[in-house]
Formats: sequence, structure tokens, C-alpha cells
Amino acid sequence: MTRQKVAVLGPGSWGTALAQVLNDNGHEVCLWGNIPEQIEELNTKHTNTRYFKDITISEDIKATLNLKEALTDVDAILFVVPTKVTRLVAKQVAETLDHKAVIMHASKGLEPGTHERLSTILEEEIPAELRSEIVVVSGPSHAEETIVRDITLITAASKDHEAAKYVQKLFSNNYFRLYTNTDVIGVETAGALKNIIAVGAGALHGLGFGDNAKAAVITRGLAEITRLGVKLGANPLTYSGLSGVGDLIVTGTSVHSRNWRAGDALGRGEKLEDIEKNMGMVIEGISTTKVAYELAKELDVYMPITTAIYKVIYEGADVRDSILGMMSNDFRSENEWH
Amino acid sequence: MTRQKVAVLGPGSWGTALAQVLNDNGHEVCLWGNIPEQIEELNTKHTNTRYFKDITISEDIKATLNLKEALTDVDAILFVVPTKVTRLVAKQVAETLDHKAVIMHASKGLEPGTHERLSTILEEEIPAELRSEIVVVSGPSHAEETIVRDITLITAASKDHEAAKYVQKLFSNNYFRLYTNTDVIGVETAGALKNIIAVGAGALHGLGFGDNAKAAVITRGLAEITRLGVKLGANPLTYSGLSGVGDLIVTGTSVHSRNWRAGDALGRGEKLEDIEKNMGMVIEGISTTKVAYELAKELDVYMPITTAIYKVIYEGADVRDSILGMMSNDFRSENEWH
Repeated sequence: MTRQKVAVLGPGSWGTALAQVLNDNGHEVCLWGNIPEQIEELNTKHTNTRYFKDITISEDIKATLNLKEALTDVDAILFVVPTKVTRLVAKQVAETLDHKAVIMHASKGLEPGTHERLSTILEEEIPAELRSEIVVVSGPSHAEETIVRDITLITAASKDHEAAKYVQKLFSNNYFRLYTNTDVIGVETAGALKNIIAVGAGALHGLGFGDNAKAAVITRGLAEITRLGVKLGANPLTYSGLSGVGDLIVTGTSVHSRNWRAGDALGRGEKLEDIEKNMGMVIEGISTTKVAYELAKELDVYMPITTAIYKVIYEGADVRDSILGMMSNDFRSENEWH
Repeated sequence: MTRQKVAVLGPGSWGTALAQVLNDNGHEVCLWGNIPEQIEELNTKHTNTRYFKDITISEDIKATLNLKEALTDVDAILFVVPTKVTRLVAKQVAETLDHKAVIMHASKGLEPGTHERLSTILEEEIPAELRSEIVVVSGPSHAEETIVRDITLITAASKDHEAAKYVQKLFSNNYFRLYTNTDVIGVETAGALKNIIAVGAGALHGLGFGDNAKAAVITRGLAEITRLGVKLGANPLTYSGLSGVGDLIVTGTSVHSRNWRAGDALGRGEKLEDIEKNMGMVIEGISTTKVAYELAKELDVYMPITTAIYKVIYEGADVRDSILGMMSNDFRSENEWH
């Protein structure tokens, strides 16, 4: 693949790690953000200490506050901004971009209020003549491991298989590999909804339960987010893949995951406001819980774990009573997907 | 449910934990084994220190060396013996049992040589007039957690839904819950084959890789054991359930798992003979790797992770080269199940 120019929108932990992967592959990378101190730090010290304490990234990676500069002559644009500002940034890109580019995103959430997937937002806000079919990049990936070039395998999903293959080639190297997938709905909803289950697994840990209980909540959680995904048009087997099971293993069993840590803190009795303040990072699972709870009611999908977590976060229910309450539902058989 | 009499064949860690669950539910439990010192310890000290250092079990649980005594008037018989002796013990049960009983098993393996599932062995060796349809009990369950009454959710699978529901009621209480399933092939092959992937995840840990790599090998491992399971007649969605994903999370991410620990030791360069000697327990994943490797060749199923582990264990291949070699396969798409 010839050298491509890529704009990475959002210099958070994952955006920075993905920028480095692209730089390792010989591509020209421009990181766009809106915090002046962070952009200056990236350009002068080549660090991003808010996320990575001891890491220096390549001097070849440029950072900018100027979206026009980031988008000039780009072949591809990667959105890695928080869910709640994706629409706003997409509008700015639509106003600024003056040629057709491959549009990718690597965020995991559903828009509050509209309940829309992020690729739908990008399709709505960026005119078709300025973009490819959207490619979703998702999977089990702690930025802290990718930035030190530990092995990472993720998914590139698009309605257009050629666009997915372009992104597969753009990112793949000897430590970072992508598998293509055409089930965009499945990959995107799995990536978003799994954060709810990570909060639940963290809460069980915070309450003092063991591995059996965590495996149970992850598996039964997978079953209920799959039920919702299928209602939204996903292939249930996508939930067994990297963006589903894979990501759930990483976020549901690891202290690196901010969603898991938020759940752990809830389990130990901390208040949501304090958790969000202490974390200093966006906890997508908190707002995704609300979106999923609303969708489950609207579409009549049985989601006991999501409901329990919703009640703890948004209605002040007791965390131990709610989580243990999930255990006392009716005797059931396993394969109830539809 | 009225008080049932249950024989538990095999006083290993899981057999002992399941005996205690049954005792907690008010059933009459007899544990049968063939090591005189262990049976005497169970009857006099009510401990099983080979597996549980600081645990005392109920005095109501009887242990015996005499199979006739264990099987007298039993309503149900639970096999929890190692895979390689299941056929032998089933033959002894067939010769000794004098009435019809519910037959269950909670072991996870495939018979070396014949490649048969354990329920098939039980069907072959125990005449139909002496048994129900076989019920398979499988799922994410460290015995060390169940014995202290931590929350555990598992699956009861049988061709006969009523038999599965009987077992569900027999075992369920406020810390131990069963979900029924009719896909016996899926539950049994998932439970056996997942041990291979646990060895692989352990090996990655032993080699020093992080959570992303472990999630990747678990997810791609799940994909390949699902491919084999589907060829053998399983429903692929069973692999997303408690006996597949659930058990894989517990065995693939936990130091409690002997299969994971064996892989970890392989990754750190230890020899298989030493690992087996130090462990002092059966490592089902080692022999299951051979069975799966042979089945994959016979049925033409692509199983790169199983093949890599097979070559390390049985052909002395270098563990780092083999595991990293899995990463360099062709660019692929995700949903290749059939």
C-alpha cells in the first residue's frame, strides 16, 4: 500500500494509539483536537501524558487545532471522539472537507435521545459525495497495550467490503491485525452495548464476588445484548466475534477498562458523580445503559442485567439488591435470542 | 422437590463441590471414589485436602469405595471422573445398577482414539432401560468458588427437556443456578474444546503478552472450536452460552484454571512432563488438543490455534514461534463458521 494521508480526529488514548499504528505503517498522520495545551504538548514533547505517562510518540505525527489543516488532501479520516460530540464534529467535517475520503470511526456508543449508531450519524451529516461507505473499527483493545506494540486483533466493518479491506490494509502490521466484517449493525451495537456488561462485571467485583459470578454476568449479559442487537438488525454470530465476546473479555475482566472500573466503584458503594470526577475520562457505558434501557422498553426486549444497572445508576437503587435480584429471575433455557 | 438420593462418582474438586451443592439442597449424597485414604478422610475428617486446604464439608455427605453401596436406591447418578476412565466406570455402573436412574455427567473432554463425546460413551455402556437420556452439566465454574457458595451459573443439557429440568431443579438454589439447553452436542463439545483455548491463553500470558492478545486468542479460538462444533452437529449459538464463552472466560483468564496454568508454564518454557508432574491433577486440555487436532484433519476444519498448541505439546515446536505464527495467517473476514 502506498503512503496514505490520514486525519485522526480526537487525541484521546485510543486515537493516539491508532495514530501511532498508522505512523508505524509509514502513513502521514495528523491528529486533530481542541485542547490547545494537549496539541502543543503533542507537537513539542511528543507525549500525551493525560493518557500515557511514560510514552513518547513519533515526531512524524503532527497535531493541530485546525480542522482545515488536518483534512487537506487526506485519503482517510478516522473519528475517535466521544459519542456525544460525534454529530457536531461530523458537521464540521462536512463543512470543511473538499474532496472524497474514506470515513472510519473507532468510538463505541449510541447517541443519547436518538438512540442512533455512530455510522448512521456520519452517513447523515457527511454528504455521500464526500465519503466512502463508513468503516467501523472495533474490538478488544486497551490503548495502553497497543501503544507499546503488544499484539492486538480487531474488526473493520463496512457495508462495502472493499472499503473494509482498504482499512484492513491501512492498519495491519506484525502486531496489529484487522479482520473484515460486513455486519456493521452487529459490530457497532456490540461495541457499544458491551460497555454496559463491563460495568456489571465491575460491580460484581466491587461487591466481592468471584470469577464464576463474573463469567455468568458476562455470558448472560452477552445473551441480552445479543437479543437487543438482533432486534436492531444484527447477525447474532457477530456478538461471538472480536467486537462482541473479544471486547467483552477485555473490558469485562480488566482493571484497565474505565467501564469496568466505574462498575467496580459502584459495587464498592461510591456515588456516580464522584466516580466520573475521579476518572477524568468519558465513561461511555454509563450513557449507553440509558440508551439500551430505553431501546429495550421500546422494542420489548428482556434485558435484566441492563435494567438492574440502569436502576442503580439512574434511580439510586441499592447495588447489591439490584445485582443479586438478577439471580432470582425465573428458571430459563439458554438459547432465547429472538 | 422431594429429597433425592444422588451418587456422585469421582471425589475430585468439582465432584466434591457439586456434592455439597446437593447436600445444601437437602438431598442424600454419596460420594464414590477409589482412593482409600481419600474416602476415609472424607468420612472421618469431612475434608478433601488434596483439593481444598481449609474447607470442611457437611457430615451428612457419605463417601464410599463400594459402588454397590453408592448406587443402592439412587434417583440420580453424576459422573465426574476423568475423561479417560469414563467408559470403564460406566461399564461398572451398568453391571451394578439394578433400577432406572437419571444419568448426568460433569466432565469435559473427548475420548482419545474414538473421539467420542462422554454422553455417547454413557449411552453406549449403560443400557437404555437403566437410564434417562443423559444430562450434561457444564459451565463456568471454579470448584474453589462453588465450595464457598459464591454465585455460579451453569447449563444442564439433554435431548430430553424434562430430564434437563429435573437436573435444573435438583441443583438450583440461591447461589447455584442452572439454565437448560437441548443442544447436547454443542454443550459437550464446547466444554471440552474450550480447554485447548485456555491452554493457548495461558501460553500467551507465559510469553508476556497482554489482555488484547489474550482476548484475541480467546475470540479467534472460540471461532475455530465453533467451526469444529458445527461440523460435529452443534448449534453455533451454544458456543456463545455458559458452556462456551462463559467457561472460556473463566478458564481462559484465571490462574485457578489448571488448563490455563499448564499453558502459562508452556509459555514460560517448562516441559510438559514437569508441568503434569507438578500439577498433580488431570489436565484435560492436553489430551483434548490431540483429539481436536485429529478431528480437524479428518473433517477438514481450519484450526490454526489448536494446530499451534498441538505442535508445541506433541511435536516439540518452539512455543513463541508457534503462537506468533498464528498471527501471520492470511487476511481474513470474521464470520467463517461453516
